[in-house]
Amino acid sequence: MKNFTYCNPTKIEFGKDKENKIGDYIAEFKVKKILITYGSDRIKKDGLFKKVVKSLKSQNIEYIELSGIQSNPLLSKVYEGIKVAKEEKVEGILAIGGGSVLDTSKAIAAGSLYQDDVWDFFSFKATITEALPIFDIMTLAATGSEMNGSAVITNEEIQQKYFINAAAIYPKVSVINPDLQKSVSNEYLVYSAVDIIAHSIEGYFTATYHPNITASYVETNIKTVISTTEKLLKNKEDYEARSEFAWAATQALNGTSTVGAEGVEFPNHMIEHAVSALYNVPHGAGLSVVMPAWMKWYYKNNKTQFERFAKEIFGLNSALEGIEALEKWFNKIGSPTKFSQFSIDESSLSAIAKNAHSNSNFFGLDEKYTEDKILEILKLAL
Amino acid sequence: MKNFTYCNPTKIEFGKDKENKIGDYIAEFKVKKILITYGSDRIKKDGLFKKVVKSLKSQNIEYIELSGIQSNPLLSKVYEGIKVAKEEKVEGILAIGGGSVLDTSKAIAAGSLYQDDVWDFFSFKATITEALPIFDIMTLAATGSEMNGSAVITNEEIQQKYFINAAAIYPKVSVINPDLQKSVSNEYLVYSAVDIIAHSIEGYFTATYHPNITASYVETNIKTVISTTEKLLKNKEDYEARSEFAWAATQALNGTSTVGAEGVEFPNHMIEHAVSALYNVPHGAGLSVVMPAWMKWYYKNNKTQFERFAKEIFGLNSALEGIEALEKWFNKIGSPTKFSQFSIDESSLSAIAKNAHSNSNFFGLDEKYTEDKILEILKLAL
Repeated sequence: MKNFTYCNPTKIEFGKDKENKIGDYIAEFKVKKILITYGSDRIKKDGLFKKVVKSLKSQNIEYIELSGIQSNPLLSKVYEGIKVAKEEKVEGILAIGGGSVLDTSKAIAAGSLYQDDVWDFFSFKATITEALPIFDIMTLAATGSEMNGSAVITNEEIQQKYFINAAAIYPKVSVINPDLQKSVSNEYLVYSAVDIIAHSIEGYFTATYHPNITASYVETNIKTVISTTEKLLKNKEDYEARSEFAWAATQALNGTSTVGAEGVEFPNHMIEHAVSALYNVPHGAGLSVVMPAWMKWYYKNNKTQFERFAKEIFGLNSALEGIEALEKWFNKIGSPTKFSQFSIDESSLSAIAKNAHSNSNFFGLDEKYTEDKILEILKLAL
Repeated sequence: MKNFTYCNPTKIEFGKDKENKIGDYIAEFKVKKILITYGSDRIKKDGLFKKVVKSLKSQNIEYIELSGIQSNPLLSKVYEGIKVAKEEKVEGILAIGGGSVLDTSKAIAAGSLYQDDVWDFFSFKATITEALPIFDIMTLAATGSEMNGSAVITNEEIQQKYFINAAAIYPKVSVINPDLQKSVSNEYLVYSAVDIIAHSIEGYFTATYHPNITASYVETNIKTVISTTEKLLKNKEDYEARSEFAWAATQALNGTSTVGAEGVEFPNHMIEHAVSALYNVPHGAGLSVVMPAWMKWYYKNNKTQFERFAKEIFGLNSALEGIEALEKWFNKIGSPTKFSQFSIDESSLSAIAKNAHSNSNFFGLDEKYTEDKILEILKLAL
């Protein structure tokens, strides 16, 4: 294994009814006033918000609200949150939702203790050294944001999706109650499955060195996602499947899946960020189009690992068969694998390639992924 | 998955030459005077101690020493360490060695901030709420103590081996440099392999409920230990094998291998603690005798999981074949599987059973494991 540092201080509170203790979890950090962030008012209709408020009140924690966070979350919303957080002098943030709400909250948490423009952190002009304490209740399992120090935000003015990464923005406590994730539509369940698989395979395939033990953990995560997604599509009420699905999502991006690896890259995310920045398609849907194309374009660079993938995940013998099996599985669960399914035709691909390439420096991939090469990949998804 | 709380704040610094930065890691916690604990003077002969001192000096950290810690570490040594730590007003402990040195250090760290007898923590008379910060450089991979809040100590006066578990005694930073573990003898490498497998299987087999994803991680750890042990017995210099072996050891007891499980018990450890408390055999050696016997005695209670074990680990089809394959593997690598190999004969088994049963309440196993039942198990290892 290559040298590494591993530390993940987030406390996970996993299971039924855990949201009822959120006030206790927050009180341990001496937070007396909190900003609750969320997307739609679904959490008010289904009673979750009420439970949270009851728990906060039991600990005398005041709260204010920031609602309307959408998927592919926007920088403008982050600015709005920072303004509120500063004016109201909140001492922490409680995100209720999925990765978009949590990522917005992480950016607000860092931006609230910074005197300048929070975008400085995304554009490498400044480094995050402190943030308000972050808590969350996850109503969607996908991004893994609940156990890492990353956040992705779209700057709508320049149509770019950038990310931050810092020790200060690991959530203090993440509540994962699989029951709260039951109301996710099949469409979003499927996109979430794709997202988790994308997080799993980026390091697995791109690393110039990937330890056997780490690869084996990754394979467990992928196999878990495949089997539990199929169960959940048949039966929304399968708590067991939903809990393993949620835990696989968390494990896929909490650092354990690249431990001891070298040369990990995120080309699929780089390209997909361009797709969703320009077309606002769901991140997971974009990934399920980009991934099989990228895999077909890339696999000869790491044939052994692609063969291992084919064998371990699908019991198949060649790299290409493995890629085709994954693409077929995406189709089977109802996730798109061709641009035509988004009504994106060949004439739009240059713009996507250009946008993706403009991110390539940020992803450390500017030399490997020229505009021409990205276009080659995109064409494989026509 | 069953409800759980997971939090593991230990920072792992893994890889070549990491010990040279130990002063920097300790300085981050504002510790200016430290107690260095170790076993024999091997660390002075091989240059490790010198490197550590150089790094401490670069950060102006003073140190004093406590040496002579032996395997199956003793309470008397803990008392000695607490006395020194209090008199010298040290602000942290740095353990250099394996699990015995680290466990002793954890007990010292908790005992140094407690006004009464540290044994109170082991006998449930008091709860650990604070401890001096603990750091370690692991020269042996086996116990997993480098990433958990547990410690096992033998009270030689009453011939009992008890343990403590508390959030306050998780190490702050653990240095795992596989190169430093090269000098471990084949004998201790083998006992370490058995210990890691024991940590892996206790929860895997005893849990009344064990999630599929968690079981799969455990199987990865076991398979990693088996393959890397064989490589290391052939070639001590195989850094790759040694690093995966070390990481499997850490993973086996850092909480991830029982996540979401219910009803986890430690009967093999309960029985082995009696063996090594009475006969001072190495913990791993004792486990390799106890485990196959316990498995033969127990497997009908959880046949599905034993069949899964046989299939996943050895590609075999029945529970008994899996148990026999493990026993055979222990023999193959040179670990004992019969009491006769320790010159313990049938006449001694009653005393072991009695000692083990006297711990059974402590392990929460007093009803399931009567003296008679423990004797039945022990007889299977004659």
